[in-house]
Amino acid sequence: MNELKIKGKNAKDASYELMNMSTKIKNNALKIISDNLEKHSTEIIEANKIDIKNSREKGISETMIDRLMLNEERIKGIAAGVRQIIDLEDPVGEVLSMKKRPNGLIIGQKRVPIGVIGIIYESRPNVTVDAAVLCLKSSNAVILRGSSDAINSNKELVRIMKLSLKETGINEGAIELIEDTSRETAVEFMKLNDYIDVLIPRGGAGLINAAVCNATVPVIKTGIGNCHVFVDESADMNKALDILVNAKTSRPSVCNACESLLVHKNIREKLLPAAIKRLKENNVEVRGCPESAKISNDVILAAEEDFGKEYLDYIISVKVVDSVDEAVKHINKYGTGHSEAIVTENYTNAQKFLDEVDAAAVYVNASTRFTDGAEFGFGAEIGISTQKIHARGPMGLKELTTTKYIVYGNGQIR
Amino acid sequence: MNELKIKGKNAKDASYELMNMSTKIKNNALKIISDNLEKHSTEIIEANKIDIKNSREKGISETMIDRLMLNEERIKGIAAGVRQIIDLEDPVGEVLSMKKRPNGLIIGQKRVPIGVIGIIYESRPNVTVDAAVLCLKSSNAVILRGSSDAINSNKELVRIMKLSLKETGINEGAIELIEDTSRETAVEFMKLNDYIDVLIPRGGAGLINAAVCNATVPVIKTGIGNCHVFVDESADMNKALDILVNAKTSRPSVCNACESLLVHKNIREKLLPAAIKRLKENNVEVRGCPESAKISNDVILAAEEDFGKEYLDYIISVKVVDSVDEAVKHINKYGTGHSEAIVTENYTNAQKFLDEVDAAAVYVNASTRFTDGAEFGFGAEIGISTQKIHARGPMGLKELTTTKYIVYGNGQIR
Repeated sequence: MNELKIKGKNAKDASYELMNMSTKIKNNALKIISDNLEKHSTEIIEANKIDIKNSREKGISETMIDRLMLNEERIKGIAAGVRQIIDLEDPVGEVLSMKKRPNGLIIGQKRVPIGVIGIIYESRPNVTVDAAVLCLKSSNAVILRGSSDAINSNKELVRIMKLSLKETGINEGAIELIEDTSRETAVEFMKLNDYIDVLIPRGGAGLINAAVCNATVPVIKTGIGNCHVFVDESADMNKALDILVNAKTSRPSVCNACESLLVHKNIREKLLPAAIKRLKENNVEVRGCPESAKISNDVILAAEEDFGKEYLDYIISVKVVDSVDEAVKHINKYGTGHSEAIVTENYTNAQKFLDEVDAAAVYVNASTRFTDGAEFGFGAEIGISTQKIHARGPMGLKELTTTKYIVYGNGQIR
Repeated sequence: MNELKIKGKNAKDASYELMNMSTKIKNNALKIISDNLEKHSTEIIEANKIDIKNSREKGISETMIDRLMLNEERIKGIAAGVRQIIDLEDPVGEVLSMKKRPNGLIIGQKRVPIGVIGIIYESRPNVTVDAAVLCLKSSNAVILRGSSDAINSNKELVRIMKLSLKETGINEGAIELIEDTSRETAVEFMKLNDYIDVLIPRGGAGLINAAVCNATVPVIKTGIGNCHVFVDESADMNKALDILVNAKTSRPSVCNACESLLVHKNIREKLLPAAIKRLKENNVEVRGCPESAKISNDVILAAEEDFGKEYLDYIISVKVVDSVDEAVKHINKYGTGHSEAIVTENYTNAQKFLDEVDAAAVYVNASTRFTDGAEFGFGAEIGISTQKIHARGPMGLKELTTTKYIVYGNGQIR
């Protein structure tokens, strides 16, 4: 058996033990994991240094190396994140409904863990711990497949989590790491239907699309965000400018950042000069439609493709639209179904936008940047789903569960 | 553009119009569809006769031809089924929760249609109507891809549904049929990510597995059922026998039928002779483990593969087990996660079985045959999901929806 099958089987076996594990035991394991991460920080940093050295030798950019880097403070942060999960409500076991049928059968729907969750992700080693502890708290086993850049860090983090599981008496198969980081193994991982119940890719569009195209395991597509801010005719200008600048510039590299500004034609002369000025002050390149380019010399003419792009950078596309209807149509055509905002004082347009925009999160008069598990009050998130089945939007512990029907009879036959 | 893309685009466009359509308009369309099906029954029967003639020429079995056949009475039945959907509650628009965050944002989670649902299915032309009207009632557009055997019937049924939509003023793209029934088109259909939000295959294991392996569109795996009845040591013998016979023989060709009997070793001498007698009376072939074969000459020795089989026929596998734990382990190993039953008078074992068996529906003292949308009180079903994401068990109208977050702000930035 190869590594995938061995670890797949370990995880599957562990998942049956986790299924009905008490919250107390799981929380105890989380406590021990967080303590051990701090206790073993020197070893983690040593392993991380190897990854950083290898990455420098490969000529990886310093931005990427910063994402990879672990130090005492960051490890403390990761450990603190684990402790936060302890306080979150355990979603497993909740009975969502229980009804008696005319034939006397009592049919209940109960929240249960999914089983084995596969996570495939890119550089950042904090994901290794974040994902593992969310799965553990929701009684799922996890199989992690990180990137080669972070392999030494990941191995050390998983070693420490496994020894913590052992201390708590939990089957170590609950957290597995695939150490073979080849592309072929990644594709094989995505087809491990016998052992993995759901695959969650976390990373850039390339990784997400590879998972969608290759996986035979059910995939939850996460985090590609071509998000829009539409400033309607009736918008409050100050709110519009603040929301736009915040959505675009507070953290341009994340999926809930704004990538495109739509402006109602009747306010283009009023809004655009101020908006472009604020964007330029924040070093944002503005690529606009011909209408918007007429208004400012700071606008570069956008190509058609610009409207479909997730820049994840200090760039924004701009388009003047005739109406809220055109804005909705544009968003449903070019958007990725992530987060979309309207700035308006008009009640009907606000409701129309909420009703007709087809996205995970639709905002009136607020920044798209709020689409996030913590901001939504979930305490933590494993990712932001942009597909329509299972979960849509930020995925917390509840979204890491499924349900099962439990049926109490007294001899009923059909 | 080929047929798939044209119809894909039609359905996508229609889906935006359906999204916020009133229940009244949708119910009116359902009423007109049911009336028109009856009114045009002669044309439907004519078209169906061509399918039957073609199938007979191809040498298709009379059982299959019976599934394909439509007559006045069956069309009345289909039309009556459509009328039943009118009375079901419209799931769309329900706000599942609405909470105010500390920053003043009001975040609601609202039930919305999925968008475009692809259905790929086998012979039975009633599925064409059933699936279309369930999608319509839940505000989804549907693209149907039936088999070549039923193509003339399906074309006529869809023609009548489309003219009914037209009468009601609903975009006809709401119901599309792919008329090219080649295998290549089926595979292309499964990869139509630009237009289809979710694919539901309905049919045998071959079709379901082809969808799981080929689709890049998210799939909901339905209806493969290797279901077990476990008779525990403490079982009431009469209940056990009635449940077993009902689960196995009331309709052996369906996915919730029992395929395997597990018996606690301490009652093998008591249960098996009576059970085998009842099964034989119902023409069921019994393939058992060596332990069970010792008890009766009517038991054929089972091969290892028998325990993993969904016979869908008058055949059952039998295994004697040492304990409820062994029964659970066996089921989690060989089962398909559909419906599983324990017959027991022991409280602890009943709870253990409910907790530890990993399936969509788990029963105590009732037949597995109850796993069905109508029996569960959903009014109708589009299929029975045996996967763990999105929906698990019978899928009614609610399971044809997703959610979206609607966020009311007053200028919040992050």
